[in-house]
Amino acid sequence: MTDLDFMQLALKAARRGIGHTWTNPVVGAVIVRDGQCIATGYHHRYGKDHAEVNALKQLPDIAMARGATMYVTLEPCSHFGKTPPCARRLVEVGIQRVVIGQEDRNPLVHGKGIAILRDAGIQVDVLGTTGELNAAYNFFYTHQRPLVTAKYAMSLDGKINAAGNTRTQLTGDAAVADAMTLRRNNQAILVGENTVMVDNLLLTVREPAPDFAPIRIVLVGDADKLSQQLRLFHDHGPIWLLSRHATSREWPANVTVKVDAQWSVAGIVDALQAAGIQSLLVEGGSHVHAQFFAAGLVDAVQVYVAPVVLGGTALPAVSGIVSQAMQSYQLSGVTQLGQDCKLTYRR
Amino acid sequence: MTDLDFMQLALKAARRGIGHTWTNPVVGAVIVRDGQCIATGYHHRYGKDHAEVNALKQLPDIAMARGATMYVTLEPCSHFGKTPPCARRLVEVGIQRVVIGQEDRNPLVHGKGIAILRDAGIQVDVLGTTGELNAAYNFFYTHQRPLVTAKYAMSLDGKINAAGNTRTQLTGDAAVADAMTLRRNNQAILVGENTVMVDNLLLTVREPAPDFAPIRIVLVGDADKLSQQLRLFHDHGPIWLLSRHATSREWPANVTVKVDAQWSVAGIVDALQAAGIQSLLVEGGSHVHAQFFAAGLVDAVQVYVAPVVLGGTALPAVSGIVSQAMQSYQLSGVTQLGQDCKLTYRR
Repeated sequence: MTDLDFMQLALKAARRGIGHTWTNPVVGAVIVRDGQCIATGYHHRYGKDHAEVNALKQLPDIAMARGATMYVTLEPCSHFGKTPPCARRLVEVGIQRVVIGQEDRNPLVHGKGIAILRDAGIQVDVLGTTGELNAAYNFFYTHQRPLVTAKYAMSLDGKINAAGNTRTQLTGDAAVADAMTLRRNNQAILVGENTVMVDNLLLTVREPAPDFAPIRIVLVGDADKLSQQLRLFHDHGPIWLLSRHATSREWPANVTVKVDAQWSVAGIVDALQAAGIQSLLVEGGSHVHAQFFAAGLVDAVQVYVAPVVLGGTALPAVSGIVSQAMQSYQLSGVTQLGQDCKLTYRR
Repeated sequence: MTDLDFMQLALKAARRGIGHTWTNPVVGAVIVRDGQCIATGYHHRYGKDHAEVNALKQLPDIAMARGATMYVTLEPCSHFGKTPPCARRLVEVGIQRVVIGQEDRNPLVHGKGIAILRDAGIQVDVLGTTGELNAAYNFFYTHQRPLVTAKYAMSLDGKINAAGNTRTQLTGDAAVADAMTLRRNNQAILVGENTVMVDNLLLTVREPAPDFAPIRIVLVGDADKLSQQLRLFHDHGPIWLLSRHATSREWPANVTVKVDAQWSVAGIVDALQAAGIQSLLVEGGSHVHAQFFAAGLVDAVQVYVAPVVLGGTALPAVSGIVSQAMQSYQLSGVTQLGQDCKLTYRR
């Protein structure tokens, strides 16, 4: 087994945390002695023990850590957060070598975890191989704003809806389930007022219930004109209403009304950044998508193409002026989901 | 080797004729004795020897045909066309068993080739396994009209062109080459007048030059108002101008002006049927596509999705009322071509 093989085991462990760590990265770790993996751990849940500590806990005797190598997908932390710093714990138990998947981009940790280990005489190697594992987390700390994904389903002639104010279900079960996974993997979901009213969406993540429900954000003209009968309000997860007018209503505890007379896309992204939200899924409608594209703030696109033709009076996927020149993306994935096709793009 | 294995060899031979047989089907044949394939043939070119005859010609001695089995992808012909009937030739040389991929849907042959063989005491088995090999040929003789394919390239937000009368090249080299193959495999190509003028297309099949160039068809208001400087006219392959007004111009020999005050999609398809054209590729623009969809005469769709966003004022892929209900297709293929993605659909 090479370093890369052991890192694969750590990555596999890390993935078990997906969907449970909220704004924390998912992390996996394995402990190796004499070429044998003797313990595996991962970060189970936001606020709970880190992967390194969980791996150490798997050892029958903590003395077995002395002289061992730890493979961990992310730089061990250096600060007292909800748990004590992992880097110090690794020094304490006598780990001899630490192989790291990638450095932590969070400035609280970046380089500091590695410095603690090296200062204690531990050999540290950084492989740089964990790629897209924590795409939003990495993006957030690299660009100081959330990773924005635009998502829509369209007909094979590029329309999202039949004409008129009716909801058109274009895609089949497999694509709907896949879109639900996408929603589960984002910390906030945004739609326009019209989408909420016409589609009357709940906008939640369905079964199994997520550990941390995404914030449901609705861009509205006047929050006080929104019907409280909307299905959106049936679920008690967090809701932000971005309103252009002040509110005089009493709202339930889960609803926050944020007021700005001129909500811009940049302003929305700033508000999310300030709240520590690392990922935003923009679900439409077409005018909202156009505004995000026009602001140059769409980092990823996920398109479901349904096997139907809607024709000319239907709304196109993106409606509104985007820019003078066309915006280019990189095709990152093509997946067939029943009769639908999922295309994913990154900038 | 089973019957299916030998038929695979015959199919492989048949495919060598693709692009060279014009309105004839592609056909392959192998001759088998004592479990060994002793000869292979295929229909090389429209008007030339059929596959069966070519296979027989591969035998060092025609006496070797006596008692042998022939595997042929299509029912042997029964009529004197450009060559004498193959079924009679098989009887003549003493073939003992004929295994057929599919019956010939052409009423001149259908069942008659098999009847000649059986009447002569030859064992005939029909496998029904050659599927899409001659899709347009089969469709033409089943539905008495050409197979119509709509093709377009669109941005990932469903637009075919930036706003205004400019040509926008959306797709990359691999998709452009693929679309050229599609053009090569159709017997006629149709575009609207606006597409010809804005894009100034040559509409030909580029290198290597095809044995039988597709007829280039342009739907025009008034043929006499078309500029003779258009690149369309630079190539001397056949052109049909479907005009709503009579022409008073002298046209080159390769140009046919067909006049109908009310050209409808059904009328166009009838004209192609009358000319024996089995396949039509509709290349747009959006309004022409919409007319074909509205007429219910699109049998296959081939869409190239480019990794760019054009936004709201650009033309959508299909523009114009298609129908009250959405039209459904079956996804038949998903292919990544560089940064573009090709989606193919059948009804």
